[in-house]
Amino acid sequence: MAEEKQGAYVEDEFRRDTRYIPTRITADGQPDGFAAEAGRYRLVVSRACPWANRTVISRRLLGLEGAISMGICGPIHDADSWTFDLDPGGVDPVLGIPRLKDAYEARPDGYKPGVTVPAIVDTTTGQVVTNDFRQITEDFATQWTAFHREGAPDLYPEALRAEIDEVQQLVYDDVNNGVYRCGFAGKQDSYDRAYDRLFGRLDWLSERLSTRRYLVGDTITEADIRLFTTLARFDAVYHGHFKCNRSKLTEMPVLWAYARDLFQTPGFGDTTDFDQIKAHYYGTHLDINPTGVIPKGPDNSSWLTPHGREELGGRPFGDGTPPGPPPEAERVPEL
Amino acid sequence: MAEEKQGAYVEDEFRRDTRYIPTRITADGQPDGFAAEAGRYRLVVSRACPWANRTVISRRLLGLEGAISMGICGPIHDADSWTFDLDPGGVDPVLGIPRLKDAYEARPDGYKPGVTVPAIVDTTTGQVVTNDFRQITEDFATQWTAFHREGAPDLYPEALRAEIDEVQQLVYDDVNNGVYRCGFAGKQDSYDRAYDRLFGRLDWLSERLSTRRYLVGDTITEADIRLFTTLARFDAVYHGHFKCNRSKLTEMPVLWAYARDLFQTPGFGDTTDFDQIKAHYYGTHLDINPTGVIPKGPDNSSWLTPHGREELGGRPFGDGTPPGPPPEAERVPEL
Repeated sequence: MAEEKQGAYVEDEFRRDTRYIPTRITADGQPDGFAAEAGRYRLVVSRACPWANRTVISRRLLGLEGAISMGICGPIHDADSWTFDLDPGGVDPVLGIPRLKDAYEARPDGYKPGVTVPAIVDTTTGQVVTNDFRQITEDFATQWTAFHREGAPDLYPEALRAEIDEVQQLVYDDVNNGVYRCGFAGKQDSYDRAYDRLFGRLDWLSERLSTRRYLVGDTITEADIRLFTTLARFDAVYHGHFKCNRSKLTEMPVLWAYARDLFQTPGFGDTTDFDQIKAHYYGTHLDINPTGVIPKGPDNSSWLTPHGREELGGRPFGDGTPPGPPPEAERVPEL
Repeated sequence: MAEEKQGAYVEDEFRRDTRYIPTRITADGQPDGFAAEAGRYRLVVSRACPWANRTVISRRLLGLEGAISMGICGPIHDADSWTFDLDPGGVDPVLGIPRLKDAYEARPDGYKPGVTVPAIVDTTTGQVVTNDFRQITEDFATQWTAFHREGAPDLYPEALRAEIDEVQQLVYDDVNNGVYRCGFAGKQDSYDRAYDRLFGRLDWLSERLSTRRYLVGDTITEADIRLFTTLARFDAVYHGHFKCNRSKLTEMPVLWAYARDLFQTPGFGDTTDFDQIKAHYYGTHLDINPTGVIPKGPDNSSWLTPHGREELGGRPFGDGTPPGPPPEAERVPEL
């Protein structure tokens, strides 16, 4: 998301504002008039944001780079939220705007909840079409099939959708959003509750993943992508900055091996930028880190160590194949 | 110390104010008129404070509990700094005062730098005699020998003093005080420098301790006590709160085994109160933790796991013996 703290407090507990733009881009353009079309849409992300990182991974795994271009905001907000400060002149080269806010304000409906990533912008109008990160990756998997690369995996297989949806909901409530509930807790009680929920769910996930390589079925699905982007940020930011500190990810053996397995799979580690992740959280949430100082740790080299998860079987891409390397312009720094 | 942040910033780097009260309590009362005497002095500490924790360990190892009583301030300051809020009625039962500040203000010289623990108060006048934590433990070892228990170790052996002093100075500059330099850094540059110095010295210590059980000689000395109180707080507070996060102590195998060896030695773990440690740092430094929320983690149970350091030889108490259990009134919660 962009406005990381977009939400409200109910009994001292942080509640994420989930009123996203409901418009969808679909294969036939129904019902909103936005049809999947090569070259028309631009995905705007930040490397830092876990919700945006999901879309970057899906796009890579499915090979949508040629059909949907990508704009990358820098890790630190200014007063107007996400900006294209990493681009020459501070302007997105395709949209021609300095701030993602401009594409939100171009919408005729005056969408108010906030300026968030990921956002998909229609380059023919300069308007944001959707920012509903949950829907975006499902639609990449199911509505953009005509543009998938050869060998693209099925990230949302029809036969497994009920189970994927169920697992994803638990992971969203307790883990993806749970880390924010810990970090943004204004009071001890709400923090304590969020912490117990988070680590209870992580224990449940460790148990589930101790005998199966992936969360649902025996291939990588949407559910794995969604869990991965939170795990990738766990030791870098959530452990210290959000006080999710019962243990580091590196101290939870099953989840740590699972996370490394994915990290070492094309599309995951090669879309993860630890420096931008740390810069964003520590540099943006000055209410919980007033100095804005960014920790130098942790040492990330162990992400590349052997994980041994092949022994559990599983076929990462099912009947498909891994994606090739990312386009030159979209590479993240190597560990 | 008490005023944890007692110090100043020089080029954005935190410099501790080390102008302590120079008065000493000595065996013969020279030169300041304060002679070691059973029942006359009260050591005032906080369980949370690493500098005070040193004196608590020394007192235990040397068996000075009967000669020097101990008052314990609660972990969280009020506007007047350390208070006796843990005592019935919020008043120290021996000194009869609610705030340690009262014993500082009772001094005729109007000592100004701050209200710090450890402090030794002369119960005959109610005045603080000394707060120089470096001198206090050396004097416990060398000036209070007439009151040592049978079997008390020699914590500052004459033949090893030069080496102990040398090691202690490096540990003080880069580790004991180094963690504060990381945590109190107001700017990225000063933090980065402090972090490199800290972990450089921890690597040096790991190397040194990989072949020897204790820092100097083959028995526990003052040097070990001083390193221990920082290591004991490392994962609980310095790792997250002070951004000392290249790795946790539990991820530095030599130092972690060394710290557990000491923790499991009578006098060390039984004077360490993790709850009060966390409450103090997270509840007092609201400039770096504005919500005051105290993390529930980390899981401390692994402090009691086997450390294997016996293989390196060494004789923890030299020709002496370990102390018995602490007095009932001075017990900390068990892990």
